[in-house]
Amino acid sequence: MSEISALGEFGLIDRLTESIKLINSSSVKGVGDDAAILNYTQPGKRVLVTTDLLLEGIHFDLTYVPLKHLGYKAVMVNLSDIYAMNGRPKQITVSIGVSARFKTEDMDELYAGMLLACERHGVDMVGGDTSASVTGLCISITCIGEGEDGKIVCRSGAKPNDLICVSGNLGAAYMGLQLLEREKKVFAENGQEGMQPDFAGKEYLLERQLKPEARKDIIDELEKAGIVPNAMMDISDGLSSELHHICKQSGVGCRIYEDKIPVDYETAVQAEEFNMNLMTVALNGGEDYELLFTVPVSMHEKVNQIKGVKVIGYTTADANEKVLVTPEGQELELKAQGWTGF
Amino acid sequence: MSEISALGEFGLIDRLTESIKLINSSSVKGVGDDAAILNYTQPGKRVLVTTDLLLEGIHFDLTYVPLKHLGYKAVMVNLSDIYAMNGRPKQITVSIGVSARFKTEDMDELYAGMLLACERHGVDMVGGDTSASVTGLCISITCIGEGEDGKIVCRSGAKPNDLICVSGNLGAAYMGLQLLEREKKVFAENGQEGMQPDFAGKEYLLERQLKPEARKDIIDELEKAGIVPNAMMDISDGLSSELHHICKQSGVGCRIYEDKIPVDYETAVQAEEFNMNLMTVALNGGEDYELLFTVPVSMHEKVNQIKGVKVIGYTTADANEKVLVTPEGQELELKAQGWTGF
Repeated sequence: MSEISALGEFGLIDRLTESIKLINSSSVKGVGDDAAILNYTQPGKRVLVTTDLLLEGIHFDLTYVPLKHLGYKAVMVNLSDIYAMNGRPKQITVSIGVSARFKTEDMDELYAGMLLACERHGVDMVGGDTSASVTGLCISITCIGEGEDGKIVCRSGAKPNDLICVSGNLGAAYMGLQLLEREKKVFAENGQEGMQPDFAGKEYLLERQLKPEARKDIIDELEKAGIVPNAMMDISDGLSSELHHICKQSGVGCRIYEDKIPVDYETAVQAEEFNMNLMTVALNGGEDYELLFTVPVSMHEKVNQIKGVKVIGYTTADANEKVLVTPEGQELELKAQGWTGF
Repeated sequence: MSEISALGEFGLIDRLTESIKLINSSSVKGVGDDAAILNYTQPGKRVLVTTDLLLEGIHFDLTYVPLKHLGYKAVMVNLSDIYAMNGRPKQITVSIGVSARFKTEDMDELYAGMLLACERHGVDMVGGDTSASVTGLCISITCIGEGEDGKIVCRSGAKPNDLICVSGNLGAAYMGLQLLEREKKVFAENGQEGMQPDFAGKEYLLERQLKPEARKDIIDELEKAGIVPNAMMDISDGLSSELHHICKQSGVGCRIYEDKIPVDYETAVQAEEFNMNLMTVALNGGEDYELLFTVPVSMHEKVNQIKGVKVIGYTTADANEKVLVTPEGQELELKAQGWTGF
């Protein structure tokens, strides 16, 4: 393992970025100048910009998160925001602050994960900033994407009586986090060299937490089906929190059905094992990076044909109405707990 | 003073961004969705993207940096990078990580400084991310700007026998930092309530350190004069380091003249007071945020007429030549010390 200081800032940047080849026609010039140069002049195109800050001790815990996974996830959460606008991610910039305990090889791992995420989604890394840090690892990524005028989907476009749709399943990433936290605690209490955590059969939950995948496939399917949702966002803070955002910004209410909310079998098993309420996990768990969107009722059949998408309820004209209907027909108020972090 | 936790993440974002009005036609939609929407479809336009990460304890010390100044400077260093491409900054996104010791009013101050910088340079704040931090303040800004195809200036375009030009004067920001560090030390040793630092007559040096101004005016003047430099970058790590970048990327050498290097009177006085070599300060001080550029010799007269620009030497065909000529005619090797931070 070698010290980053031996390379210096510019040496580190060269090492981390030397393998980068730009693949998008909109990427004119990448790393190596005061700014990257992009070309978005095609008529009808729009530029989408999103940014996320990930801080050690808040967003990730390196005692159980491998750096390569962290890099992958850090990129993925940004790509997810671009897909959530019905856009296509094209470029990212990456800024990192690195404290002295990290070695050059650690940064290689982090960047390998980031570049793998870029490669899988056809995204160019075009710039960034590297710096020392006195306090752990800090990752700030900005993603630039492309949307088509008239097809970009905001949170504010839901109409009353839209169908509310969700991709994939919810709560698994949160259960994965609980598992990792439990093993960390067990290890801290009884820890000894060579002790291995017991994750047999839990691979899916761990993968959902450690290596989430932005739902490009759903955006592809919507496009193929000719569906432009009225409103969309990605689920990072939990379904109920995000649904509140869409309702607030669109001026609508919502009714969703508990028995329609997609939950994986492993999530259910784990919630029972941890004696947690499965619906609370699915509604408020966070970090699912699934897509939440609304479409007109007329699209019902079309949207039903998309694998991995479920209709969970519908929007209503009464903006004050936020209802969760239980399998027994009981109506509960849907509360936005979400994650605040403050 | 009120706790940020009382507002929560979304409440804080609303408070900090509620006064924002978008002014650029390229800013279609700002804060409040998964991504901002921009329009850069005008023929011949290019999008410029740059990003900077500022970390407490590395890039700034809040014992003597007011938060409003910090916000202003954090934006300014990004705008400077866009101007350095001969571009015009149009949008920024701002991500901040905030530890528990900061109050809502602190964030008001920080954002007031950022928004003032935006206002002065006609820039829209269109997005960002806010997060808790376990370790002090972290600011990550990405700036998006506009350039014209054929008029964007990279570091790599210098030709042999170009004139090397510098705006403003060098070393003042570094002397301002030394002053602040000295007073901090004095205060730590003899500190008592109400003691005031002695900065009389040093206002210029402090302003250069605490509230630098990106050189939009120089870009305006170059445009008016019909000058498109062959190469350009901003001076953030010190003149000699930046000149090495331009030489390396352009495959040229350089000869610059000590007595042509612009230094303010106050910088000279302070260097003497601190018993520091003035040329070392001017060449390696850093944080000047002046522009370094090269133009063909044929532009000599035109560039001489721009107030605040000085020709300090010229580029040469020998890429290995990096020479500083002293007033006595002695030739020294120009070394890139710069700042590494690692």
